[in-house]
Amino acid sequence: MWIDLRSDTVTQPTEVMRQAMARAEVGDDVYGDDPTVNRLELLASEILGKEAALFVPSGTFGNQLAIMTHTQRGDEILLGEECHILMHEVGGAAVLSGVQTRSFPTNMGRVDINKLEKMIRGLDIHFPNTGLICMENAHSSGTAVPVENMKAVYNLAKSKEIPVHIDGARIFNAAVSLEVDVKEIAACGDSVNVCLSKGLCAPVGSILVGSYDFILKARKNRKLMGGGLRQAGILAAAGIIALTEMASRLGEDHKNARYLADRLEEIESCHVNRDRLDINMVFFTLSESVISESALITGLNSEKIRVNGQEDGEYRFVTNYGVSIEDIDQLVQTMKNIIVNYSHDR
Amino acid sequence: MWIDLRSDTVTQPTEVMRQAMARAEVGDDVYGDDPTVNRLELLASEILGKEAALFVPSGTFGNQLAIMTHTQRGDEILLGEECHILMHEVGGAAVLSGVQTRSFPTNMGRVDINKLEKMIRGLDIHFPNTGLICMENAHSSGTAVPVENMKAVYNLAKSKEIPVHIDGARIFNAAVSLEVDVKEIAACGDSVNVCLSKGLCAPVGSILVGSYDFILKARKNRKLMGGGLRQAGILAAAGIIALTEMASRLGEDHKNARYLADRLEEIESCHVNRDRLDINMVFFTLSESVISESALITGLNSEKIRVNGQEDGEYRFVTNYGVSIEDIDQLVQTMKNIIVNYSHDR
Amino acid sequence: MWIDLRSDTVTQPTEVMRQAMARAEVGDDVYGDDPTVNRLELLASEILGKEAALFVPSGTFGNQLAIMTHTQRGDEILLGEECHILMHEVGGAAVLSGVQTRSFPTNMGRVDINKLEKMIRGLDIHFPNTGLICMENAHSSGTAVPVENMKAVYNLAKSKEIPVHIDGARIFNAAVSLEVDVKEIAACGDSVNVCLSKGLCAPVGSILVGSYDFILKARKNRKLMGGGLRQAGILAAAGIIALTEMASRLGEDHKNARYLADRLEEIESCHVNRDRLDINMVFFTLSESVISESALITGLNSEKIRVNGQEDGEYRFVTNYGVSIEDIDQLVQTMKNIIVNYSHDR
Amino acid sequence: MWIDLRSDTVTQPTEVMRQAMARAEVGDDVYGDDPTVNRLELLASEILGKEAALFVPSGTFGNQLAIMTHTQRGDEILLGEECHILMHEVGGAAVLSGVQTRSFPTNMGRVDINKLEKMIRGLDIHFPNTGLICMENAHSSGTAVPVENMKAVYNLAKSKEIPVHIDGARIFNAAVSLEVDVKEIAACGDSVNVCLSKGLCAPVGSILVGSYDFILKARKNRKLMGGGLRQAGILAAAGIIALTEMASRLGEDHKNARYLADRLEEIESCHVNRDRLDINMVFFTLSESVISESALITGLNSEKIRVNGQEDGEYRFVTNYGVSIEDIDQLVQTMKNIIVNYSHDR
Repeated sequence: MWIDLRSDTVTQPTEVMRQAMARAEVGDDVYGDDPTVNRLELLASEILGKEAALFVPSGTFGNQLAIMTHTQRGDEILLGEECHILMHEVGGAAVLSGVQTRSFPTNMGRVDINKLEKMIRGLDIHFPNTGLICMENAHSSGTAVPVENMKAVYNLAKSKEIPVHIDGARIFNAAVSLEVDVKEIAACGDSVNVCLSKGLCAPVGSILVGSYDFILKARKNRKLMGGGLRQAGILAAAGIIALTEMASRLGEDHKNARYLADRLEEIESCHVNRDRLDINMVFFTLSESVISESALITGLNSEKIRVNGQEDGEYRFVTNYGVSIEDIDQLVQTMKNIIVNYSHDR
Repeated sequence: MWIDLRSDTVTQPTEVMRQAMARAEVGDDVYGDDPTVNRLELLASEILGKEAALFVPSGTFGNQLAIMTHTQRGDEILLGEECHILMHEVGGAAVLSGVQTRSFPTNMGRVDINKLEKMIRGLDIHFPNTGLICMENAHSSGTAVPVENMKAVYNLAKSKEIPVHIDGARIFNAAVSLEVDVKEIAACGDSVNVCLSKGLCAPVGSILVGSYDFILKARKNRKLMGGGLRQAGILAAAGIIALTEMASRLGEDHKNARYLADRLEEIESCHVNRDRLDINMVFFTLSESVISESALITGLNSEKIRVNGQEDGEYRFVTNYGVSIEDIDQLVQTMKNIIVNYSHDR
Repeated sequence: MWIDLRSDTVTQPTEVMRQAMARAEVGDDVYGDDPTVNRLELLASEILGKEAALFVPSGTFGNQLAIMTHTQRGDEILLGEECHILMHEVGGAAVLSGVQTRSFPTNMGRVDINKLEKMIRGLDIHFPNTGLICMENAHSSGTAVPVENMKAVYNLAKSKEIPVHIDGARIFNAAVSLEVDVKEIAACGDSVNVCLSKGLCAPVGSILVGSYDFILKARKNRKLMGGGLRQAGILAAAGIIALTEMASRLGEDHKNARYLADRLEEIESCHVNRDRLDINMVFFTLSESVISESALITGLNSEKIRVNGQEDGEYRFVTNYGVSIEDIDQLVQTMKNIIVNYSHDR
Repeated sequence: MWIDLRSDTVTQPTEVMRQAMARAEVGDDVYGDDPTVNRLELLASEILGKEAALFVPSGTFGNQLAIMTHTQRGDEILLGEECHILMHEVGGAAVLSGVQTRSFPTNMGRVDINKLEKMIRGLDIHFPNTGLICMENAHSSGTAVPVENMKAVYNLAKSKEIPVHIDGARIFNAAVSLEVDVKEIAACGDSVNVCLSKGLCAPVGSILVGSYDFILKARKNRKLMGGGLRQAGILAAAGIIALTEMASRLGEDHKNARYLADRLEEIESCHVNRDRLDINMVFFTLSESVISESALITGLNSEKIRVNGQEDGEYRFVTNYGVSIEDIDQLVQTMKNIIVNYSHDR
């Protein structure tokens, strides 16, 4: 078995999920006939505290669907400069929805309300309409954004009658880290997209939640985007377990991340970024003089450990359901061995 | 158990599929790590006779992805006036790909080559580029289009260097009906989209096939459209069975459709359209004086039989894996009873 | 001086227009400060019988702006299969507005109301919304569409709450031919685009008319499309003369067209299509055995006469302000000479 | 006569321009027949040092056309966070071209090359392609960007095979300020858009320059966007004078701007931003305690002086061909009077 720290997207469905999928009662969800999808959507709307929910094939799908549903062609959407929608969704918002992206800087996801307010467009023939504000929590920098900051954004948006979407791919990680009910975070947006895969271990799918009217409109747009599935209850069965059984155990991944951070600091000139250690991600730098990027990755791979290369000079290791304390010990020991051999070989 | 003749999209995964899904070896398909998805894609490319294949969430997704991948913003695509892409995909091509749809009439899917040739744009500053020609087989009118006609379209397109996409949602039905290898049909297009659900009974998913280069580009566009799934091997496991075990039994659905047609003709003033009885669809009219649309549907529903209402004055009943000869007998008997009661009640 | 029958777009501004342009009082029209533009827009709205008007750079611009303003991304628009918007605007509607085009056949511009009604989409998750119906009068086939037919389309659209746009590039030609006030035609649409160049001889520009709200929205979209001009009063000055002095003389072009038709029929195997001789366009065929297309065009060019080549096997000669009866006599005589020499040379 | 400092877009065509427009030799430019447009395009390409040129209706049109022509649907374009394309073109790039905008901070138009380099996308399935980099010179902050900085951006872009577009709406102002040939600035981009209106006084139009191939493609896209004009030679005639006679006098506007700056500083608590006084724009702040925004504007209006309100707490007064030294004296005197009365009234 490989140890995989590339992302929490690599998690495998649990045995309970596999049994549930095998037995799932299904129907044609385009006709609204799939009882398991219907159960999942009802459950998700209750847990997130929204009127309605919609199962979608992926996190990117859910975010882009929310954008399409909230906006009109030609709107401008405001979003954080490092956020997933801007950085990691292949530029989809312009193609799929015809909206202009304009980004604001954030402090590890925290929004400067005054700066944001200045970016909201007034009435001027040269200006697009500000059609949507997007937040992300947990933030991809590895942090959980305080609910107060999100509330301030939401209140500002509401005072200007601008809808708010939350990319809550890891909203349960944020809730665990902030020690709040996930509803409190979700209340800071008109819509929230939540990933069932990632830390929650479902194989496929996300859930978009919002008002009845929003979800009704999103259901049609989902069909347009090719996300109207048939017997999706197979996947929804795993999603139900993700929400009911897996969300509560995310604290373990966080604890493991902190353990991993501690252990990594045993390595010479390994600097862990402790400011961004809220959830299951450990960001750290490791001098090229200690070990080159390619030597580290190759070395780990040859010991059946998978990690990603650096982004902006930083490594990101992600703990998840498939990574135990023993795996972390093995990882750190393997790193140490590779580093020793590396210095000898030069 | 309900008898459902609304569509073959209502088919449930078989027990073998459920077992395969429960046991499927999976990985993160965005990283290319899912062995079951990889197996399905290899299998599909071999069966269809193309270099490469890509698993996508739905038939609409596959068709729209093909359009996005073949065309450039501003191209015009030519397609049959009754085809699924134009009629039943929520106008997606304009939104997702920025291409203009222009339709040609077909004779139950058969294309008039001379008319099509005239529609291909020449060089003129007023004209968009003709960026794609789409065909559909089996055709949604219930027919299988002869391979010769498809070849003629393909040859014309190639002589003009225009790519060709085939909506092969029911390409196996067409192959069975035409008594040809499915490769012969697929050879008439640069890309083909094939549904694993519908008559083949997989719960979710389609396969898009084409050249290596095309699929490479499509893989990126799939991410943009939100169709990059994670542990999709769960679904692919069912897809493999769909291709290996279910395609060969579609002839049974066709035979059942012809049996259903014969039985329906026992009903007074029920007129079956025998010109469009190539696959698993039976189109027929039934005078409102014999039975009103709502009375028929309600009556059948109360006996646990689901059918759709008329479209353009016609009923369409679709045989599928869940519909046996006995079910058909029961359906026709129930219809007869409803009609008798209906005439008494008035 | 050349004789030019390629189109009425080739007309030169009159001397009166040139004087008016030289003297025009102008301002910055993006600020709404150009008095001549304002006068033109007021005048146009009165003549067409609409609440408001907007000056735009071209006929294509006006049509595409109307589409962008009436529709939402993802709508379907219904329009005649030979119309300018579908055939000669470079596929713009999909790119600029993200709307799907679906065409209905027309009988020289006349719409079959029953067929059109069937094309209007109902509520179904597979269907786009029918967002706009477009008509064209005068029709590019050379005919004026009877007001009754247009009214029927308009009433149908209104009963379904669908907006209607009229491409009235040559609406004054239609009004003259039908012997009705142009208001009667314009009343059959929620918006109308009217070309000031073409037969009316202004050098540049069209006018889009509609309700106050529609034009307000269109003014913003015009800016987005890059059509917010500055001292456009220069062009508007010519436009005012086009509307006040030139519209009334279009009957002369029509008379000349009929004269040209009569004279062309003197030529052996020249067949004029008399069904489509309502305005200033003469459509005719001329056997390749009498004279080849290239020989005719080259021969005329060498005598300083410009005509276009065939489209779909037909020649179209367009009379206009720059073409007199004497020019027509000279044209026909030149054609005869060319044909005689052509037969000798072979 | 009003004194108008809102923008240099308010400039009126000169008497010479009016005579030239009245006499201009014209033709149908869609057919390429307009000799005056052809002359203007040739002239512009020579002055800017590019292979070819295209007349377009406005600056926004030219920029958006360049974006459409350089990019493919789904590309990302990188541009300064305060630039006209992002801030003042109604979000057009997403609508018209389907491209995602991502902005970099600039120091009054100067680009931080290291930051820019990091924003260029590598190969990753989550990333859009970096399809275009945009610069602006003169920059809308009132500065001229040094050619060395532009060259560095261009060289970076070329090393990555990314095209570069320059919004050169006021490129002649920049050239005058930097004391370089305009060709040197234009050489830092693959395409440049230059406004003929603004300081150069032509009533309508811009010129897009680039390679033959680029302009050929742009010509077709111009038609799609509705910018194919007919007898545009009327406007081109003024454009020729703008380029040949007016560009050289822009230094006068700059001198007047510096004079205006000096005079404004006579006013109590009026702070002119001297860092951004390179061209014809004077940015300054004026405390609300001295005079309120509305009182200032209304007061000036009643004395036939037009200015815009503040943007981000700053006033911008723009000198132009219609504003003389005497006008400036009158403006400043009027401001002083208004301020005195304002303090008395309170």
